[in-house]
Amino acid sequence: MFIIMNSPFIFDTKTVNYIIGDGALQQAEKLFAQYSSVFILMDENVEKYCLDVLMNALPDIKVRGYIKIPAGESSKSIEHAIHIWESLTNLGASRDSLLINLGGGVVSDIGGFCASTFKRGLKFINIPTTLLAQVDASIGGKTGIDFLSYKNQVGLFVDPKAVIIDPVFLKTLEYKYWQSGFAEVTKHALIMDKELWKMLGNRRFTEIEEWNSIIQRSAKDKIDIVRYDKTEAGIRKILNFGHTVGHAIETFYLKSGNPITHGQAVAAGIICETWISSKMVELECENVEEVINRIDLNFDRLQFTENDISELMKEMRQDKKIVDGDIKFSLLRKLGKAVHDIGNVDSELIRDSLLFYINNKKCN
Amino acid sequence: MFIIMNSPFIFDTKTVNYIIGDGALQQAEKLFAQYSSVFILMDENVEKYCLDVLMNALPDIKVRGYIKIPAGESSKSIEHAIHIWESLTNLGASRDSLLINLGGGVVSDIGGFCASTFKRGLKFINIPTTLLAQVDASIGGKTGIDFLSYKNQVGLFVDPKAVIIDPVFLKTLEYKYWQSGFAEVTKHALIMDKELWKMLGNRRFTEIEEWNSIIQRSAKDKIDIVRYDKTEAGIRKILNFGHTVGHAIETFYLKSGNPITHGQAVAAGIICETWISSKMVELECENVEEVINRIDLNFDRLQFTENDISELMKEMRQDKKIVDGDIKFSLLRKLGKAVHDIGNVDSELIRDSLLFYINNKKCN
Repeated sequence: MFIIMNSPFIFDTKTVNYIIGDGALQQAEKLFAQYSSVFILMDENVEKYCLDVLMNALPDIKVRGYIKIPAGESSKSIEHAIHIWESLTNLGASRDSLLINLGGGVVSDIGGFCASTFKRGLKFINIPTTLLAQVDASIGGKTGIDFLSYKNQVGLFVDPKAVIIDPVFLKTLEYKYWQSGFAEVTKHALIMDKELWKMLGNRRFTEIEEWNSIIQRSAKDKIDIVRYDKTEAGIRKILNFGHTVGHAIETFYLKSGNPITHGQAVAAGIICETWISSKMVELECENVEEVINRIDLNFDRLQFTENDISELMKEMRQDKKIVDGDIKFSLLRKLGKAVHDIGNVDSELIRDSLLFYINNKKCN
Repeated sequence: MFIIMNSPFIFDTKTVNYIIGDGALQQAEKLFAQYSSVFILMDENVEKYCLDVLMNALPDIKVRGYIKIPAGESSKSIEHAIHIWESLTNLGASRDSLLINLGGGVVSDIGGFCASTFKRGLKFINIPTTLLAQVDASIGGKTGIDFLSYKNQVGLFVDPKAVIIDPVFLKTLEYKYWQSGFAEVTKHALIMDKELWKMLGNRRFTEIEEWNSIIQRSAKDKIDIVRYDKTEAGIRKILNFGHTVGHAIETFYLKSGNPITHGQAVAAGIICETWISSKMVELECENVEEVINRIDLNFDRLQFTENDISELMKEMRQDKKIVDGDIKFSLLRKLGKAVHDIGNVDSELIRDSLLFYINNKKCN
C-alpha cells in the first residue's frame, strides 16, 4: 500500500526518476549536477511566475540558454517545434546536454518531442508548474504537437529522465487552472483510488488544504498506470474515462471561438460517462449521484443545448479510440474502479447522456 | 559462426525481423498479411525501377496509398517530413497501418522518422533498393532528417518491424551507386570480418558475381554490431571507421557544388584512416598497402589538393564524434579488427594523412 509522506517522495521506475511533494526542487539538486549544459524551455507566464522559484531553489544549475514559446495550446505546432530545434542548435546543445521543460502540459508535450528528436535524443526533465501537469501531463511519456488541426498527430512515447513535482509553483496558479487540474485529480480517484476519493471529500476544491498529499497520491496513481502500459495497449486506457465525451465538448467549444479549460470539458464528460456507466456496466445510481454532486460543487454546468448534440456526436466520431467505427469507452464499474474497451455503446445512449447533462436529471 | 546460405536467411532479433538474400521478397509475404492498410514511400527513380518488382513479388499487399519525394539527399528536409505527415493524415493512416520505405538511405531515414512520430508510432518496414542501403542504411534504427545544414540533426533511434533485403532490386542500379555501396561492404570487412575481406578478393567489384553471399554477410555484420549497441554508446562506433575524414571530404565536395557519392568519400577516408591506424595503433604497413591497393582498384583518387586541407580540417572539427575538442577515431588494429574512441590524434597527423592520400605515398 502506498503511504502518504510529508517530505517529498522519490520513486525510481526503471527509466524515470520521480520526486514529488513539498521540497521536491531542493531534493532534486543532485539530478542536475551531471549536466554541464542545461537549457530551459518555458512560456512567458512561466518566465514571469516560476523561473525565479526554480533558480532560487537550484542556483547551481548550469543554464546555458532559455527557449521561449508563447503561452497556450497553439504553441504545440510544427512552427514552434522548428523554433525549438533551431534554438537548441544555435545555443550549441549536444547529446550530453539537458532540456528542462518548465511549465504546463504544452511545454512538456512539445519540449519532450523536440528534445527526444534532437540529434536522435537529448535528455529532458519535466518540472510541471500547473496542477494539471503535475498530476497528469508531465507523467507518462506522451509527447507531441498538434498538426493539421489534429491533437498530438505528430509525437512519440518517450520518457523524461526525471519528473520533479513541487507544489510550490501552484501558489501563483489562477483559479481556472486549479479547477482544470482538479478534474483530473477527481478522475484518478474515480477510476482507481477509492482512498483518494475519500480524501477529496464532499467539498469545494478551494477548501482543500492538504494539496501536498493529494498531489503525491494522484501523481502516483498515474505513474502506476503508465509504468505497466506505456503505449496504451490496455490498462492505461482507463485514464480516458470522461475524455471521450469530454474531448468532443472541448473541441466543440474551441471551434465555437469560446474555448473552455480541459478540466471543464472533462468534468462534463465525467457526468455523461458516469451516467453511461450506470446503463452499461451496472454502476449504482447512488454512486452516480455522489459523483455528480461533487462535480457540480466544483464546476458550473456548461451551457450547450439540445441543438448542439449532433455537432458533439460528430466530434466524437473523430475520436482516436474508435476501432472499426465503434467508440471504445472507459467506464466506472464502481467508485475507484474503471473498466476499459467497452464497445457497442448505442449512439442513442450517448445522446441521452448529453441530454441527462443538459437537463440536470437524476439517475434512475 | 555465421553460415552463408543460398536461400534467403531469416533472422529475428528481439525487435526486428530480417530477411536477406535472393527470394527475400517472396519469403516476406506473411509479414504483410496482418496489415489491412499499407502505404509506400518512395522517390521517382524507385517508382520507375523498383515498384513493379515489389508488387509483382507481393501482389497481395493491401496498398492504400503512395507517398512520393524527389530523389536525392535534399529530400531529407523538414519540408518533406511535413509532406509525409500530411500525406499519411490525408490518406487516413492509423496506428494499425504500415509504412513501407522502398528505396535508398534517404527514404528509410526520413520514412522511419515520419512513421515513428506519426500518431506516436506507425509501424514501418524497410525494403532497401540500393547496395548502400542493403548493407548499411536500412539496418540499425538510425532515422532522421537534415536541419539547418546539419546532417541528421533531427531524428531518432527506432527499429523497423522488418528489413527485407533482396538483391533483385540491384539489377537496375547505376555503376556509381554500386561503387558507393561497395565502400561500406569493404569497411565492414575491414572492421570486423576477415572472412568477408577474403571473399571480396583483390579484384574490381564489377568482377564479383557472388553478391548474394556478400550482401548476406555484410548486412549480418551490421546487424551484429547494432543489436549490441543500438545508440552508439560503444562498439557501434567502429562503424565510423573511414567516416571521420570521409564525412569532411563529402561535405567539402557538397559545398563546392561538385558532390561526390558517400562511398567515394568513404573510400578516400578509409585510405587516410588506414594510414593513421599504422601510426596510432600499430597496423602493419603491409596491411596498409593491401587496403590501399583494393581501394585504388575500385575508386579513382579524388582531386582535392594541398590547398584544400585547411578547409577539410575545418569540416572535421564539426564532427559529432568530438568530445571536449578531441576527435575520437575508429581505427584498424589489423585487417578485420577495429578499435574505437582513439583520441589524441594530432592535427598534424590528420593533415599528413591527407597529404599521404593526395601524393599517393607508400606506407613506411
